[in-house]
Amino acid sequence: MDLLKRAEKALEFHFERAAGLGAPPRLVEAMRHAVFSGGARVRPQLVLSVAMACGEDAPELTDAAACAVELMHCASLVHDDMPAFDNADIRRGRPSVHKAFGEPLALLAGDALIVMAYQVLLNAGKSDPERLVALMHALSAGVGLPSGIVAGQAWECEVKADLGQYQRAKTGALFVAATCSGALCCASDAGPWATLGASLGEAYQVADDIRDVMGQAILLGKPSGQDVLHARPSAASELGLDGAMAHFQSLIELAIASIPECSYRELLQQLVRREAERLVPSAAFAEFKRQSMLAPQSMSA
Amino acid sequence: MDLLKRAEKALEFHFERAAGLGAPPRLVEAMRHAVFSGGARVRPQLVLSVAMACGEDAPELTDAAACAVELMHCASLVHDDMPAFDNADIRRGRPSVHKAFGEPLALLAGDALIVMAYQVLLNAGKSDPERLVALMHALSAGVGLPSGIVAGQAWECEVKADLGQYQRAKTGALFVAATCSGALCCASDAGPWATLGASLGEAYQVADDIRDVMGQAILLGKPSGQDVLHARPSAASELGLDGAMAHFQSLIELAIASIPECSYRELLQQLVRREAERLVPSAAFAEFKRQSMLAPQSMSA
Repeated sequence: MDLLKRAEKALEFHFERAAGLGAPPRLVEAMRHAVFSGGARVRPQLVLSVAMACGEDAPELTDAAACAVELMHCASLVHDDMPAFDNADIRRGRPSVHKAFGEPLALLAGDALIVMAYQVLLNAGKSDPERLVALMHALSAGVGLPSGIVAGQAWECEVKADLGQYQRAKTGALFVAATCSGALCCASDAGPWATLGASLGEAYQVADDIRDVMGQAILLGKPSGQDVLHARPSAASELGLDGAMAHFQSLIELAIASIPECSYRELLQQLVRREAERLVPSAAFAEFKRQSMLAPQSMSA
Repeated sequence: MDLLKRAEKALEFHFERAAGLGAPPRLVEAMRHAVFSGGARVRPQLVLSVAMACGEDAPELTDAAACAVELMHCASLVHDDMPAFDNADIRRGRPSVHKAFGEPLALLAGDALIVMAYQVLLNAGKSDPERLVALMHALSAGVGLPSGIVAGQAWECEVKADLGQYQRAKTGALFVAATCSGALCCASDAGPWATLGASLGEAYQVADDIRDVMGQAILLGKPSGQDVLHARPSAASELGLDGAMAHFQSLIELAIASIPECSYRELLQQLVRREAERLVPSAAFAEFKRQSMLAPQSMSA
């Protein structure tokens, strides 16, 4: 089974099991809207592929770890889209959760997805409390204080924030949780896998900054120009577009080089390269550059 | 040490340890504002007293369990106060978190407190993964789907909600988590302690409905009349004020009767009676009734 299909199937199974019976139906619907909306499932695919590289021996736990990371990601998207932050009406080409279900249910859906991430792990980890606890540590570090994605988002509310620290927390932390979880669900050492997550996560954030400038609202399925609008720290505004692109490419190379020797090394390297091309398609970037040179004023965005 | 002091001390210690170093300072400040604001600490005191009744043998884990439940409670208050729900400017006589720090940080503070609850347990449970996992199950059930406090809050967004189901989830679920956690951190059977949590939690919700009608805005330190304003299910509007008071008293009696035989039974029974009197002071209720009879139109609230 390919990794994306496996991730989708695992999400369906673990979501239903954790939701249980008798929950408020509209809350569940809002949560499903957030989770099953055609996301690329990059983080769970990372969990699965690292687990395979580490000699996966507990597939149910691996699936659960992949789901837990994705549920946290979805929770953060729901809350980030709300009027208090991006006020984004659209996510992946569909109404955002608060647009479709209202702000109260969006707030609660995010909260319930955070808890569900832990529930999914708990449900799958009964037979091996040691691995389960290690996975929960990694997941919590990726989301909470001091430097998980919630902390990353909160750096936007500080007067002064270091761009690197902000990016590492806002996006990198959950990627680190993903790669480390892949190792931990096989009782492997997570240490060698942290750099892959960190550099890939930072690359995602830089790619987001680049695309925000390129204004691919339609390609992204979400509003562009948000960084300037919200005066957020941005690699593109700090390094310039070319500088940001160079930084992005060096982060991708770092991610690729960091993958430890293992039988799946090539598969993982391909996954990273494919993602890099999906994030900032080289043809689209070249075309944007060409048009920018014809009409330099369009760079002002 | 009395239970309240022990709970406060544990919260200070476990909050700092889980926050770690390098977190965004305003986020931490917002979280501290939410947690250290003179709450009655009823839930952590329940954890501690049930643990004592069960022959507490792992005080650090007990403290952590007490903190975890309180952090979840604080997270729910932060999010419930936000404009999407109660739009409450005041909590415990001070500005609510979103009033003091803005909506973005209030949203993130709630999220981070949910994760911190798990972090606190993880930090304290290293030496006994079995107990740790049991505690995490109980905590998740008290907060998440299908019938934790987040689900309880979400019943307000449904067209049709059963009052009992709503109250059991909205408040009772975290009380059940508290009493069960007290047993679980001593590796005791949680079953005999569930009724105490459930009936006490439902009593809290009914007391809230009664006080909402009584309009003790000053006594409560938060706005009153919220149930009518938000068209929420309410025991007072469904059963009438006298019916609600009778229901409250029967729940308190049920809570007291449910406490299993143990050396701390009397202490626990006193704790419940003291809480009941704090929740709906009998003198204030009698005075309200007297005034209502003098001026029946005031009952219309």
